[in-house]
Amino acid sequence: MALVAVSNKRVILKRYLTACEIGQLGDEMEVVTAEAVPLSVPAGSFAVLVKNLYISCDPYLRNRMIRHEVPTYISDFVPGEVVTSHGVMKVISSGHLDFKAGDLVWGMTGWEEYTLINNPESLFKINYPEFPLSNYTGVLEMHGLTAYVGFFEMSKPKKACSAIGQIVGQLAKIKGCYVVNLLKTKFGFDDAFNYKKEPDLEAALKRCFPEGIDIDFENVGGAMLDAVLPNMRLGGRITMCGMISQYHLERPEGVRNLMYIITKRLRMEGFVIFDSIAVYRQFEEEMAGYLREGKVTYVEDIVQGLDAAPAALIGIYNGLNVGKQLVSIAQA
Amino acid sequence: MALVAVSNKRVILKRYLTACEIGQLGDEMEVVTAEAVPLSVPAGSFAVLVKNLYISCDPYLRNRMIRHEVPTYISDFVPGEVVTSHGVMKVISSGHLDFKAGDLVWGMTGWEEYTLINNPESLFKINYPEFPLSNYTGVLEMHGLTAYVGFFEMSKPKKACSAIGQIVGQLAKIKGCYVVNLLKTKFGFDDAFNYKKEPDLEAALKRCFPEGIDIDFENVGGAMLDAVLPNMRLGGRITMCGMISQYHLERPEGVRNLMYIITKRLRMEGFVIFDSIAVYRQFEEEMAGYLREGKVTYVEDIVQGLDAAPAALIGIYNGLNVGKQLVSIAQA
Repeated sequence: MALVAVSNKRVILKRYLTACEIGQLGDEMEVVTAEAVPLSVPAGSFAVLVKNLYISCDPYLRNRMIRHEVPTYISDFVPGEVVTSHGVMKVISSGHLDFKAGDLVWGMTGWEEYTLINNPESLFKINYPEFPLSNYTGVLEMHGLTAYVGFFEMSKPKKACSAIGQIVGQLAKIKGCYVVNLLKTKFGFDDAFNYKKEPDLEAALKRCFPEGIDIDFENVGGAMLDAVLPNMRLGGRITMCGMISQYHLERPEGVRNLMYIITKRLRMEGFVIFDSIAVYRQFEEEMAGYLREGKVTYVEDIVQGLDAAPAALIGIYNGLNVGKQLVSIAQA
Repeated sequence: MALVAVSNKRVILKRYLTACEIGQLGDEMEVVTAEAVPLSVPAGSFAVLVKNLYISCDPYLRNRMIRHEVPTYISDFVPGEVVTSHGVMKVISSGHLDFKAGDLVWGMTGWEEYTLINNPESLFKINYPEFPLSNYTGVLEMHGLTAYVGFFEMSKPKKACSAIGQIVGQLAKIKGCYVVNLLKTKFGFDDAFNYKKEPDLEAALKRCFPEGIDIDFENVGGAMLDAVLPNMRLGGRITMCGMISQYHLERPEGVRNLMYIITKRLRMEGFVIFDSIAVYRQFEEEMAGYLREGKVTYVEDIVQGLDAAPAALIGIYNGLNVGKQLVSIAQA
């Protein structure tokens, strides 16, 4: 078989960011056309060559563009190399028995047209291609799984609860919970406010939760978390998933209300979704059911093409996206 | 039987404190001689009249001398009324079937010579009078129980751990843990430092725990807690018991390192010992065994007489006590 090679446009990191640049610029990324890649895996290789269809813009990615003295839970990007994130891909050529050309998969890939994946064990086959494939960068993938594990396993819902994030909010609704979210009309949440525009967060929470909060699914951190603490109910749980309001700060905001953890007997617990990958298939089946029945609604904000990817990623820190931000690179 | 009445010296609260006065003054307390009390309970009453032998000086008491707009987990003291805390008492007269004159008990009582206790169900009989009775204001009472519940139930020790507080530190030693405490020689702790004198708390912890901390039994809060977080190991537990460094501050210090709760998958959980009173008898038996076998050592700082009580209480905020602070009022 003749080796066909194609050009490969990609987004690379040019230089490391400083923490305060997280939501600014974009000149630390560059779109280049790399040397042509052959459209089949090397002979004898167990790798898989994929065509990237969608890539995911996630808050944690800008943090990987900072050089960390102390390792975090994920490795830093390297200047000159392609940016990576989760994506949806089509297998073009496979040296691995579990995959064949034409398979649709999701997993870690490059921000480029084609990627040679040397550890295909990390890929997941897409079991429900009847949904928009882009859903496999979010609601049917790690974001959905994060909401699912964070809500059902970590937060142990009983009845009432708060929640942040569109999916966890809807999972809470399925369980009959009382939740806050930005988009209450769209997602059917009981109440909502925009934490960036609220002058008194503690009062806003008290307004939304006159009887207090049983479960906080925390993705904001800082002043928002400080306002949550006095509004928690006895024995409440704070599931710590992220702190998007803090990543761009040179020094994180101080949280002063931690005494409530004692007086209200709260549990605050952190989790990183990579630890829960074993639950994925169970989650995928359950979430596919919720989507099919219309119990979960999902909104995506899709930009077209790799050239638009750097700005799309920066936009999520400035609140420019409505719904899950992703980049469409090619059609299946 | 003739009613014998005796005079009754007592410590009353004169006025509410402000938060920043917690470790200062003492003029908000006053030692007065109240009207004579009859030395038997009123006819038909279910109350118990006790002679107070020892009273306990505890950090939470000064907090009860502040007027709280929002109720805390315990009621505020009332100006003009006697200060109360846990103590060791001898029953003088009883209207309650469970108690008789001569019984030694511990529980909530007044800072005075004699107290009429209207809810004797709250009292515990002393099962091991062979130990110094004063131990029932500490190691054999709520302080010991706090260490016991906080360590064994909340912190779920495996092997390595840190701990603060003399009893929890020794419980940790019994379990083979590596612990930090002020008095390592006395209690046999592996290492120790004084958080009030250490210029760089984060570095001090790293020195004591080069491999990181699995369990933090937190009683200090503020900057100390902030220094603990980066030194925690993956999946570690922070049992939140108190924040003595914060109670005198108008505004608590901000804790900035909470992101480690996520990246290190930490659990931070608060508890209030009043919820765990059901475990007391099991604890008392076990702790009596540890004391008898010399596995737990216990140091008390005893001042004599009610006149010395206000200064003794203030002293614990200024680090003047060595060991558990208490006041001896009378001999059994």
